[in-house]
Amino acid sequence: MAVLRLAEIVARLGGELRGDGALEIRQVASIEQAGPSDVTFLANPRYRAGLANTRAGAVILSAAAAADCPVASIVCDQPYLYFARLSQWLNPRERAAAQRHHSATIDSPLPASVSVGAGSVIGAGCRIGERVDIGANCSIGAGSSIGADALLHAQVTLYPGAVVGARAILHSGVVIGADGFGFAREGDGSWLKIPQIGRVIIGDDVEIGAGTTIDRGALEDTVIEDGVKLDNQIQIGHNVRIGAHSAFAGCVGVAGSARIGRRCTVGGAAVILGHLSIADDVNISAGTLVAKSIHKRGTYTATVPLLEHGEWLKNFSHLRHLEALADRIRALEVELARLAEKDKS
Amino acid sequence: MAVLRLAEIVARLGGELRGDGALEIRQVASIEQAGPSDVTFLANPRYRAGLANTRAGAVILSAAAAADCPVASIVCDQPYLYFARLSQWLNPRERAAAQRHHSATIDSPLPASVSVGAGSVIGAGCRIGERVDIGANCSIGAGSSIGADALLHAQVTLYPGAVVGARAILHSGVVIGADGFGFAREGDGSWLKIPQIGRVIIGDDVEIGAGTTIDRGALEDTVIEDGVKLDNQIQIGHNVRIGAHSAFAGCVGVAGSARIGRRCTVGGAAVILGHLSIADDVNISAGTLVAKSIHKRGTYTATVPLLEHGEWLKNFSHLRHLEALADRIRALEVELARLAEKDKS
Amino acid sequence: MAVLRLAEIVARLGGELRGDGALEIRQVASIEQAGPSDVTFLANPRYRAGLANTRAGAVILSAAAAADCPVASIVCDQPYLYFARLSQWLNPRERAAAQRHHSATIDSPLPASVSVGAGSVIGAGCRIGERVDIGANCSIGAGSSIGADALLHAQVTLYPGAVVGARAILHSGVVIGADGFGFAREGDGSWLKIPQIGRVIIGDDVEIGAGTTIDRGALEDTVIEDGVKLDNQIQIGHNVRIGAHSAFAGCVGVAGSARIGRRCTVGGAAVILGHLSIADDVNISAGTLVAKSIHKRGTYTATVPLLEHGEWLKNFSHLRHLEALADRIRALEVELARLAEKDKS
Repeated sequence: MAVLRLAEIVARLGGELRGDGALEIRQVASIEQAGPSDVTFLANPRYRAGLANTRAGAVILSAAAAADCPVASIVCDQPYLYFARLSQWLNPRERAAAQRHHSATIDSPLPASVSVGAGSVIGAGCRIGERVDIGANCSIGAGSSIGADALLHAQVTLYPGAVVGARAILHSGVVIGADGFGFAREGDGSWLKIPQIGRVIIGDDVEIGAGTTIDRGALEDTVIEDGVKLDNQIQIGHNVRIGAHSAFAGCVGVAGSARIGRRCTVGGAAVILGHLSIADDVNISAGTLVAKSIHKRGTYTATVPLLEHGEWLKNFSHLRHLEALADRIRALEVELARLAEKDKS
Repeated sequence: MAVLRLAEIVARLGGELRGDGALEIRQVASIEQAGPSDVTFLANPRYRAGLANTRAGAVILSAAAAADCPVASIVCDQPYLYFARLSQWLNPRERAAAQRHHSATIDSPLPASVSVGAGSVIGAGCRIGERVDIGANCSIGAGSSIGADALLHAQVTLYPGAVVGARAILHSGVVIGADGFGFAREGDGSWLKIPQIGRVIIGDDVEIGAGTTIDRGALEDTVIEDGVKLDNQIQIGHNVRIGAHSAFAGCVGVAGSARIGRRCTVGGAAVILGHLSIADDVNISAGTLVAKSIHKRGTYTATVPLLEHGEWLKNFSHLRHLEALADRIRALEVELARLAEKDKS
Repeated sequence: MAVLRLAEIVARLGGELRGDGALEIRQVASIEQAGPSDVTFLANPRYRAGLANTRAGAVILSAAAAADCPVASIVCDQPYLYFARLSQWLNPRERAAAQRHHSATIDSPLPASVSVGAGSVIGAGCRIGERVDIGANCSIGAGSSIGADALLHAQVTLYPGAVVGARAILHSGVVIGADGFGFAREGDGSWLKIPQIGRVIIGDDVEIGAGTTIDRGALEDTVIEDGVKLDNQIQIGHNVRIGAHSAFAGCVGVAGSARIGRRCTVGGAAVILGHLSIADDVNISAGTLVAKSIHKRGTYTATVPLLEHGEWLKNFSHLRHLEALADRIRALEVELARLAEKDKS
């Protein structure tokens, strides 16, 4: 594990050092758990109370908070971003040694720098970039393509023909390129499968969380642009396009043919229906169902407040009768106007 | 890849050809991307604007739209269904060559026509039908049964004793037959596991999407009837029964012992609670929570409209006070009636 | 399969036997399907109608229901708990024979009592307890720890350093220890990954359903305390803590750094947002979004009632205008008060 002096950190990452530049740092830690060889950070003012008692070696924080810091500090404009850079420096990605486990089944030529874990299966005609790291028990379908420096953790599945960009990180249980959900209905109510002949195209620097599934296109391709980050257990339907640098929290579902802009954020368990489009820089709140297109940047929400169950029963039963309540208000207005008119005369 | 002439297509699939029967067709494509050797279709009138500019070789469409078609066309009553049949013809399922990969572990006798991918494990006492195609790294528990012509993509899991019908398609990450969630609560709040001794029985012509899980029954069986189509990341609890030809979009959850009728459709991320029943031909809208039984066919919904966040805050805070609003309306009605009465006298 | 006499059952598990103690019992079954060598139970009064027609050998029930029982019965205070104990006796967990399949890749020393299925991969430096049973095609990362008598079904993934307690049951598709979803945002909207250096710590007697994912901590650990039961397709974000004996139904999502108390129950598809805390003994209804902390035990709900779609359209459109409705009520109150005042004078 790396040991860095505070002066070294500031020399490389910038910021203003307040304290002893010779102090040795070994790791990052939370403000409560940091010890003398750890750096922590203060980005959210609501954790400021923890600052007084921290035992960290140093704290990364903004100028506004620096005066209260009882230990060494690095003052900068964006403490969380600074902390991220430092943590990446202290915790570089561990690369598997370049080797192909003898139990792997490999039917494509691979660069010597590639690592393939035990039990993984790579079909014919794949193009695998330099230094790609494939974990144990993965299944890579024929004709897939994986960009340089990508990391596939154990138990990832790529269907044939999937395209994954450089530096992608795919977590366990990810499935890329399964058939989209497309059926035509017969007269008797049964379903006729539409062959799904599109692909999945995933850009560079994309991370995809455990258990997330991205379906192949029906006719055209499903596209995940550069820098998109998807958390765990997200479902992306066929023909969807997600714009660059959008980030989705866990359990989101996106139905087929939706088009989502760049730099959007989608909160956990939100649902985006099919065949609609969402502008750039839109934020969808957690748990929100998006049933129509959003043409303007901003934050959008569709959730109901939590109540104690008895309160909920009393209040939410009225939702079945809002139209009747509105009618009664209208009737009151008419009647009251009539009385008021009469009263004037 | 097959090459079909338009005359050949109409001879087999019906419809009225308008244009050159000798035109060669190689693939289906979307109305925007189709080129001269592609067929496309127009099923939804809202895409009609694309018709004028299509470069497709031919378009499958209804008589009502045919007059506007600038290229050859096939006129029929159900263009989408016709397109599905044609696409199946042009894109037949690719079968793996019948072979058992040397790295597979196979403890049951298999027909010679069966294919087993690298790393797959088939337990003892399984009954595997003719031409079953099992992808890489699947785990088939002892005593399972898989019908003829079924296709298991890579990384599918069947627990012991699962029954899967003919022509089933199971996508990667599917788990069939895990224990249902059944516990009795002890006096101290801890949980005692109820052994889950039922099975999962899946009918013929069922398709199950990536990451979908179907639990085994507690005492009786969980049953998925013929022709059911389940999209990705659906959870089906123990003892559930889903009627023939019902189709569920992604991320749906069905709690234990629910009984769902035939030909139902369930929109994405809808949730159906346990121990209730849903009639045949019911449609549940996406994102809807079904908390009680539905006895009559029709469409049912329980979602709230999306608002810009500031609008949402203003409007939805009233949900906590609907009872009070209703009380105030009642009080107004009483008071106004009193005044009106007095006014009359 | 065990054969038990009713007298034997009562001798070991208690309760009052009414009927022939020599009756032989082979299995538990539902009240409708039980035959003469099965025991069934009646715990929920709404199934009492089934009692008259049961063909079970014996019924476990409460004193209140015993008079109506047409066959032998075991009378006790908690029929469901009694039934669970009896079912465990009749259906003990089947253990795989202790063996390491030759196709498994094992880089850690294992006790002789451990079983490892075909295709499973166990990294270096793992500590695996006595009688641990690892199914087919599992991937156990380096430095993981699994307590005695734990059962991992096929296709389970542990990332490096995961800690799983004794007697845990992990179902297929479970992923423990993937990176939490942590990124700092650059000025241009792109995302910088925060290394996730915490672990996942899972206590004893925990069961985790198929496809459930539990992310490793960002800096501290994600902790699942003893006796927790998680159903299928649950997502647990980084740094979450779940108190002992809490039970979550399927499809629940818990965002990062949430702290959930002991003995809580969370209904299916509920969502708990991040950085909040929930007291002990809280019940969250299915489909509920929890967007702020809950400090008091009780049941909490945030769902909307299901309506036929036309009714829904009429009633729920008013949700966009609740503020306006409230304003109109206020205006009516003012105007009516003015009139009433005038009327008095």
